[in-house]
Amino acid sequence: MSIRIGIFGYGNLGRGVEAAIRQNPDMTLAAVFTRRDPSTLKINTEGVPVLNISDAEKMVNDIDVMILCGGSATDLPTQTPETVKLFNVVDSFDTHAKIPEHFEAVDSAAKESGKVGIISVGWDPGLFSLNRLYGSAVLSEGKDYTFWGKGVSQGHSDAIRRVKGVLDAKQYTIPVEEALDAVRSGSELELTTRQKHIRECFVVAKDGADTKKIEAEIKSMPNYFADYDTTVHFITKEELDRDHSGIPHGGFVIRSGKTGFNKEHNHIIEYSLKLDSNPEFTASVLVAYARAAYKLSLDKVSGCKTVLDIPPAYLSAKSGAELRKELL
Amino acid sequence: MSIRIGIFGYGNLGRGVEAAIRQNPDMTLAAVFTRRDPSTLKINTEGVPVLNISDAEKMVNDIDVMILCGGSATDLPTQTPETVKLFNVVDSFDTHAKIPEHFEAVDSAAKESGKVGIISVGWDPGLFSLNRLYGSAVLSEGKDYTFWGKGVSQGHSDAIRRVKGVLDAKQYTIPVEEALDAVRSGSELELTTRQKHIRECFVVAKDGADTKKIEAEIKSMPNYFADYDTTVHFITKEELDRDHSGIPHGGFVIRSGKTGFNKEHNHIIEYSLKLDSNPEFTASVLVAYARAAYKLSLDKVSGCKTVLDIPPAYLSAKSGAELRKELL
Repeated sequence: MSIRIGIFGYGNLGRGVEAAIRQNPDMTLAAVFTRRDPSTLKINTEGVPVLNISDAEKMVNDIDVMILCGGSATDLPTQTPETVKLFNVVDSFDTHAKIPEHFEAVDSAAKESGKVGIISVGWDPGLFSLNRLYGSAVLSEGKDYTFWGKGVSQGHSDAIRRVKGVLDAKQYTIPVEEALDAVRSGSELELTTRQKHIRECFVVAKDGADTKKIEAEIKSMPNYFADYDTTVHFITKEELDRDHSGIPHGGFVIRSGKTGFNKEHNHIIEYSLKLDSNPEFTASVLVAYARAAYKLSLDKVSGCKTVLDIPPAYLSAKSGAELRKELL
Repeated sequence: MSIRIGIFGYGNLGRGVEAAIRQNPDMTLAAVFTRRDPSTLKINTEGVPVLNISDAEKMVNDIDVMILCGGSATDLPTQTPETVKLFNVVDSFDTHAKIPEHFEAVDSAAKESGKVGIISVGWDPGLFSLNRLYGSAVLSEGKDYTFWGKGVSQGHSDAIRRVKGVLDAKQYTIPVEEALDAVRSGSELELTTRQKHIRECFVVAKDGADTKKIEAEIKSMPNYFADYDTTVHFITKEELDRDHSGIPHGGFVIRSGKTGFNKEHNHIIEYSLKLDSNPEFTASVLVAYARAAYKLSLDKVSGCKTVLDIPPAYLSAKSGAELRKELL
């Protein structure tokens, strides 16, 4: 039997989930839910109903797992606890500081409804969190480092677009190669914000805008740019659209640690991602964890879970015996 | 309360476990078991009893998890199913082809005794298996690649030592850099054995031995060397002891896959290890999974498990709330 998936929110992430479901023969897309007027939405899959989110309740018997594709700032804090009252859910809540609070809200709603809610699924939080956990559990004396990029930061791009005189912009977060190499050498150093990442900005200025002033304003922006070495390039709208329309991302989690009676041996565990499409990759992780949510529900598990709680085998469509034979 | 660990077998791996226990404040070493006369064995930890393996039964109330440090060829196939009748156990059984059979033997013994046995723990099988699983579950259309090295292969070093005229030898398995780069570029190619790894041998010949003949014999050895580009260096015993006494290892698991409605986006997930000491790192993984075995036993779980079955959080001494706050 196929796992019936609902998509709740149809932006970049929702479309990524729709594409990922096609790559997993044990799943089918049951419905797409939108806040817009459903008649205005054209999805990529024939014959699948598009409904308003207010009609989700009518689909409780037709959906095994709902994948929530809203944003962490305003959508998920209310959507996930609400939706888990009716469905098993998976979300990509990524406001690190608010995860404990979100967990509690989803956990109590899910325990009451007897459903499973897996939160904060994606790559960071998500696969990177797993690697921070495995690394620190195995090399208990050591240090871990997370680097992001090279990739587009939506938040930083938005911040530039709010600067007066800016028409459009894309910002890339780039790990500093020397810092990566130093960490890989096992030196376990303390790195400042400036030492870990640089920020590269591609900016389209409005006609007649003062580019010197724009550049100075970007570079001095607190939190976003002031603590980093930032480069600003002014380009045309055509160049921006031609060369910077993708949403690549990636990064590194490195654990450096020591073993031995005299801590005489160094070890480096490195995990890295190079992603052509951040939302599609995140969507692929969500879909794998939707499978896990479904299996947990068959086990009669309820409550909130994170990637740290899920047995890895639950992500796979293969049986335990197949996995032991083929992958172990 | 501290988790009480027994070490069963005191070679390189057993000593690595002893060292790793010191790095984990929630654990104590309860006893070391040896096949030798215990009075002849000097361990590195004061005040811990050394017993003959035949006396293990007397310690059933003093040990929470027994870590089996024997070899996969002859020790573990019988030791693990036998020992799990009395203790929760963790082993590093690494004969990939025989894992299903070993699993069944341990599973039935463990279910009967009500204990947990976690098998095939280490880095391959182990952490590499986890990465093959996560990678293939997330990027369901793609290909994975495992490369080993640079590191010492004990089996290949032993094979060289059996060649007539050889006094001693060390063999390094080295991944081919061009193959790694090709895989990282997302080209999803089929690689032959020869294209993936080269083999470098450091050989001490006996006085008067025919080194040309030794070299030819090594390079043509079926299974071990014939399918590889192999380099043979003749060095002195002093050089071997000075420059090649370590047991480093490592390797790479790379998943290359595509997403998107038209499979237009490439993604690369890369996991790598650079280990100064293969046995100490493997021991550190065993110790983390001993913690998991202990937690599973508190949950009243019994039977055989592998790394693919264990919720990641079970490896950590931290609570779920701490992990969500600090690592997620």
